[in-house]
Amino acid sequence: MLQDPPRHKSSAFVPHDLPTPLRGAAGGPLSGLTAAVKDMFDIAGERTGAGNPTWLSTRSPATTTASAVARLLAAGADIIGKTVCDEFFFSIAGVNIHYGTPVNARAPGRLPGGSSSGSAAAVGAGACDLALGSDTGGSVRVPAALNGIYGIRTSHGRVSVGGAMAMAPSFDTVGWFAAGPGLLRKLGPVMLEGSGDPTPLRRLLLATDAFTEADEAVQTVLWSFVGRASAVLPGLEEVVVAPEGFEPWRASFRTIQGREIWAIYGDWIERNKPKLGPGIAERMAYAATLTAADEAPARAIAERARHHLRRLVPAGTVLVLPTVPSIAPKLTASAEALDAFRSRTMALTSIAGLGGLPQVNLPAAQVDGYPVGLSLMGAAGTDEMLLDLAVALGPYCGG
Amino acid sequence: MLQDPPRHKSSAFVPHDLPTPLRGAAGGPLSGLTAAVKDMFDIAGERTGAGNPTWLSTRSPATTTASAVARLLAAGADIIGKTVCDEFFFSIAGVNIHYGTPVNARAPGRLPGGSSSGSAAAVGAGACDLALGSDTGGSVRVPAALNGIYGIRTSHGRVSVGGAMAMAPSFDTVGWFAAGPGLLRKLGPVMLEGSGDPTPLRRLLLATDAFTEADEAVQTVLWSFVGRASAVLPGLEEVVVAPEGFEPWRASFRTIQGREIWAIYGDWIERNKPKLGPGIAERMAYAATLTAADEAPARAIAERARHHLRRLVPAGTVLVLPTVPSIAPKLTASAEALDAFRSRTMALTSIAGLGGLPQVNLPAAQVDGYPVGLSLMGAAGTDEMLLDLAVALGPYCGG
Repeated sequence: MLQDPPRHKSSAFVPHDLPTPLRGAAGGPLSGLTAAVKDMFDIAGERTGAGNPTWLSTRSPATTTASAVARLLAAGADIIGKTVCDEFFFSIAGVNIHYGTPVNARAPGRLPGGSSSGSAAAVGAGACDLALGSDTGGSVRVPAALNGIYGIRTSHGRVSVGGAMAMAPSFDTVGWFAAGPGLLRKLGPVMLEGSGDPTPLRRLLLATDAFTEADEAVQTVLWSFVGRASAVLPGLEEVVVAPEGFEPWRASFRTIQGREIWAIYGDWIERNKPKLGPGIAERMAYAATLTAADEAPARAIAERARHHLRRLVPAGTVLVLPTVPSIAPKLTASAEALDAFRSRTMALTSIAGLGGLPQVNLPAAQVDGYPVGLSLMGAAGTDEMLLDLAVALGPYCGG
Repeated sequence: MLQDPPRHKSSAFVPHDLPTPLRGAAGGPLSGLTAAVKDMFDIAGERTGAGNPTWLSTRSPATTTASAVARLLAAGADIIGKTVCDEFFFSIAGVNIHYGTPVNARAPGRLPGGSSSGSAAAVGAGACDLALGSDTGGSVRVPAALNGIYGIRTSHGRVSVGGAMAMAPSFDTVGWFAAGPGLLRKLGPVMLEGSGDPTPLRRLLLATDAFTEADEAVQTVLWSFVGRASAVLPGLEEVVVAPEGFEPWRASFRTIQGREIWAIYGDWIERNKPKLGPGIAERMAYAATLTAADEAPARAIAERARHHLRRLVPAGTVLVLPTVPSIAPKLTASAEALDAFRSRTMALTSIAGLGGLPQVNLPAAQVDGYPVGLSLMGAAGTDEMLLDLAVALGPYCGG
């Protein structure tokens, strides 16, 4: 195993970090800006670690650079480091027992959220201007919300996952973080492939059942935000997103995700028996037990959910919902508390996962001084419209 | 008096805000980014308020747009609002009794600092990507430090103050804020006039007497930051900045500042008798008492300080010091506590004021979860080198 260099940079970065920054192309729209990259994207010459040192120790240096990273470099951004993530991206807590939990600079004593924990923490702390993450079941949206920054999960298929490690390919998307709304948007033309759906914003739907999932204090500040921002929004309509409740969707998402991650990493895990952190070990063990017989009904539910969501949120419609139902859990949260946080949160984050929909987190408000995020979810392909809406709503953020 | 429109945007913005955003030029380096502007810079067609409603009520709409604002627009940034500031820029607390105190999203229950309070709060909260402020005796550096973001006070004379209200012209400078280091730097070529001094970084001086002015906890986290970042820094040398102590410098700064602000606003204040908030009223009253006999010795001390500083910090040397000696005061701080905060802080901030030197705040660390800033001060004209150094040190920020 290679010797890791001494670690001096902030807790957001992995010990097997880049030896020196990678310089972006001159003259691009992101020139002079600095970016960090979740340690699931290949960078030529570097080992990609997936948050787990055993995985890292069995890897060779990548021979090519992931498409999303290459796009950042071509647009002029300098890549200044590789960030810590939850092991195999299989957690939204942001805890990493091997490399330490990245410090959430905006929520002292609280978790950063994950799995793109270090990317969000780095942007939240000002360690860099922007950062790359991935989002399967909330891994960009959750840490964006908990760190009080902007984050986008793109439409499924809108940004190539080439050169990035897979997690659950049915849901895997690339996303990014920025502290300001214009910078979040500025990455749109850099990262998004294809021309997108140009339908303008026409309808705004408030997801009442999603709001009900959130803590009362979270609901209060987000309703207040929506009320203040109504000046720049079209008429708001209330809607129930999941008439039969979120639980069947969440359960189907969990089953499919488990089947897919085990199909990818199961063999390696059985052979190498890596040490996995709390929660992740249990979820991998659970994934190993899932069968094709579990998967079939889950796929059927997922397909119905996808159909329902694509009808509920056509192009030109935006669904407004809490990103995460609570503020960040404490660093000292028990395993049970983290399980509950995961269940409640994934009731909300699996919606876009199942629909393949883009979703943007705004750092809308605070509860007890801790960040609370509001989400904008749109039809597949309307990522650009969501980014524009985030910019229009920016001035209402901050209390 | 004009009727103010209803206020919905965040607390960082003034009630007499822009009716609609001003669109930046297409294709510039800042295109797509959003900026807020301290309500001391003229914007054609708008009244400039200086944080005081009586002043606002006696103003006509500006006929031209301030040079610094025009530079932002020409570089492509959209101006999305005008921000709250301390009245007549004569406080570093960030309290405004007329418009409310902008919420410091990164320091719940604490002041944002001033006088560019709303500009820093807007960037800290993600309401916009960047913001314009001014710095005479700390008005960019202090709120940058307290809001946990980057901020630069430029070399005196490096950015035109044309179209901006004056405060104390001997010391007035334009500055800006950003949440990330690359974006802070990206404004350099946009804003800085002339070619700058190209001398590269050669020496780093740690201002031991400036560190001693700070709370022990602040010293501890900043020393730790400097230690961690030493990998990318040239050899560090300890230095005493003010062999006779900071007090004579601070006192001379205060006297000159008082004489200059009264020369500008004294007549208007005596005629209009505006209501001024606590601290500001007292300082204006004090300024009114100052005489030419007070000013002469203060000018002599200031001239010696300037000479001393320009020898101590030649081009290629950077002085490292705490930006502010403590975390942000509580919202409920007493007048006495705020006076003490002001005195302690201005012992550090008057250094660059007297020297006409550029200074950059980094969001280096936290104490009890509240932001603490580290400053880099350089020779006049070396703003670009400081911005590059801030980018190099970025990855060490965040704990």
